[in-house]
Amino acid sequence: MINFEKALRCIREKAPLIHCITNFVTVNDCANIILATGGSPSMAHHVREVEEVAEVAHGLVCNLGAIFDVEAMILAGKRANSLGKPVILDPVGVGGTQLRRDEGKRLLEEVDFDVIRGNASEIRFLAGQNTSGKGVDAEVTDMVNEEDLISAEGMAKALAERCGSVVDMSGALDVISDGGRIAIVRNGCDTMAKITGSGCMLSSLIGVFCVAMPEDYFAATCAATVVMGVCGEIAEERRIKNKTGNATFRNDIIDGVFNLNEQEILERAKYEVF
Amino acid sequence: MINFEKALRCIREKAPLIHCITNFVTVNDCANIILATGGSPSMAHHVREVEEVAEVAHGLVCNLGAIFDVEAMILAGKRANSLGKPVILDPVGVGGTQLRRDEGKRLLEEVDFDVIRGNASEIRFLAGQNTSGKGVDAEVTDMVNEEDLISAEGMAKALAERCGSVVDMSGALDVISDGGRIAIVRNGCDTMAKITGSGCMLSSLIGVFCVAMPEDYFAATCAATVVMGVCGEIAEERRIKNKTGNATFRNDIIDGVFNLNEQEILERAKYEVF
Amino acid sequence: MINFEKALRCIREKAPLIHCITNFVTVNDCANIILATGGSPSMAHHVREVEEVAEVAHGLVCNLGAIFDVEAMILAGKRANSLGKPVILDPVGVGGTQLRRDEGKRLLEEVDFDVIRGNASEIRFLAGQNTSGKGVDAEVTDMVNEEDLISAEGMAKALAERCGSVVDMSGALDVISDGGRIAIVRNGCDTMAKITGSGCMLSSLIGVFCVAMPEDYFAATCAATVVMGVCGEIAEERRIKNKTGNATFRNDIIDGVFNLNEQEILERAKYEVF
Repeated sequence: MINFEKALRCIREKAPLIHCITNFVTVNDCANIILATGGSPSMAHHVREVEEVAEVAHGLVCNLGAIFDVEAMILAGKRANSLGKPVILDPVGVGGTQLRRDEGKRLLEEVDFDVIRGNASEIRFLAGQNTSGKGVDAEVTDMVNEEDLISAEGMAKALAERCGSVVDMSGALDVISDGGRIAIVRNGCDTMAKITGSGCMLSSLIGVFCVAMPEDYFAATCAATVVMGVCGEIAEERRIKNKTGNATFRNDIIDGVFNLNEQEILERAKYEVF
Repeated sequence: MINFEKALRCIREKAPLIHCITNFVTVNDCANIILATGGSPSMAHHVREVEEVAEVAHGLVCNLGAIFDVEAMILAGKRANSLGKPVILDPVGVGGTQLRRDEGKRLLEEVDFDVIRGNASEIRFLAGQNTSGKGVDAEVTDMVNEEDLISAEGMAKALAERCGSVVDMSGALDVISDGGRIAIVRNGCDTMAKITGSGCMLSSLIGVFCVAMPEDYFAATCAATVVMGVCGEIAEERRIKNKTGNATFRNDIIDGVFNLNEQEILERAKYEVF
Repeated sequence: MINFEKALRCIREKAPLIHCITNFVTVNDCANIILATGGSPSMAHHVREVEEVAEVAHGLVCNLGAIFDVEAMILAGKRANSLGKPVILDPVGVGGTQLRRDEGKRLLEEVDFDVIRGNASEIRFLAGQNTSGKGVDAEVTDMVNEEDLISAEGMAKALAERCGSVVDMSGALDVISDGGRIAIVRNGCDTMAKITGSGCMLSSLIGVFCVAMPEDYFAATCAATVVMGVCGEIAEERRIKNKTGNATFRNDIIDGVFNLNEQEILERAKYEVF
């Protein structure tokens, strides 16, 4: 279903400028993974300039980890919405504190998000389900496995329908829905949960792919999720071979994106859409 | 004395959530080294949420490099204190400017720190001694060597007694005291002073080990300091072998923590307690 | 012309303390590249302490990416000016938004910059030329190539004369002028544009070299630009050999600075001054 060859070609031809309003923990990794695709990042987050940046950028990624910058996200988000540019939400730790619950709610009321990408705890919270999420990492009890896949699919689909967004609940299994279609992505590896920024980087990649595939944000989100998982697998093989750890693994993921070709994606991609 | 096997097992079983209010220079490294141990980081620093995060976290690390966030440190610190959770202070550059002297003093008055981990210039300042510390790196004239070890031990011990904290003066020689016991750690290498974040990462590790060894924060601080030094040595061997430099060395330290086992620690650990 | 041997020796002997008021995206890389040279970084940016830090530091680098910190830059810059210490401006994205145009103008009015280092879009904007610069990366149409080198030289020279600064327009070709002399540096590689922070790191290096070569900031700027380009070339060879990508390449650049010796610089340096 996904035309990876075309997506990669579009990205490299268009060199999308992706505006990220994102947190200080993983901002460097997000910028470098966007550059690795052939895109260009802007991390501007001052309320006095984000609307102008949103105008020239091709897409916007709002990361709730930047909890001080919600006003900037709303200004940039409205502008990007009005120009028909893709807007992605990464609701970092949204259920964890009252502040994040309030700011998450406000963001969803003020901005139309084309894609919402979160971990199991974050998506469960947005879907109104019980969650034990305390921090920014998904709780083990929230994670999706093959046994409760059907209920996770239903939840993602219902949330997508309610928000009018593509929903991407990422983890060992990624569940993606646009309210109609559902995709399951089985790429990736456990070490991805052992670095900070796997989720943030994936959200940045989704921004890039949405610009390259404007006709179908659901397919774009699936494509980015497969690519992130494939690069995680490539990085895991290097980690084992070179006896490195999570810090080098993080660089190897970004390097994997830098060196990616459609042949490698097609050989490794494990996803189904229904 | 230190049961490394038990400490590592506890960390991996409990997966401690460590709340760091820390600076923007090394925040990513601190998060990744916590993840490397098997723990989980939260870098939340908004005054409207840090108390809630301190409640669910297992321990708190306050890094004075985050000089804009001292109010958040006080709120989170008081809450963690009241819940009996370990609170660690990293007094980055505390003697260097009036602002840091004032804010350092205020922090020590408002929060009970279980451990204070600083470089020689920072600890000398807190102990009321003359120091030539100008920036965030220790001044050469402040550093501890074998010749003035006895006076350094006395200083650390007196400061520990006065503050009711474990004091860890780290450097080529690490001097640790809880006011009664004294430990000297001789692990590590010079390249650790050639990256930003060696100290910040050690403070984060101390947070993790204090959660795993709640019965003895002095032993926990020693354990974390040995582990950091051992991982520095492993990284140094890789640096020489692979002809890399300080940037890769930084990743190799984190990777070293990721791959650590008690056998390797026991073979390399160089510390004495008296 | 440039005495690289003396410059490296001075840096290692003096261990310059470089005060950077810089952006949160690349702050860690800037700190580590300063440490790689043998210098020491301070990233303090609170208005209540930057003047004190500027007093003890040997040089100051102001990076407009830190758009929230312009007031701090002005305070620190005035103090460094009054003490005769080198002050470098990196006008990140200066033409891109009204806020950056205003703040860039204000900075140039309030502080005397010894060196201004920007990409082609940034320098063109400051020189009053048309530019299509939208983000922080230089626009393709703004870039300097062999064909329009003469006009670029004229522009750099005129801007240098007007500002009383050394101007370094960096890119595939680096054009440097102090209003009288002009230098062209041909070191570097395309991958340098595929990481975030090439420019920020170069500006940090210029700060280090200006401290080591106080008699001639033009030569210091040329030296730093050659060193950055040479380290980019070394990193590119490692990237190709080890089949890595832009993330590892970034570390390899910093590692290259860490391991640098004058022999290697002299063999690779490609620059001309006239």
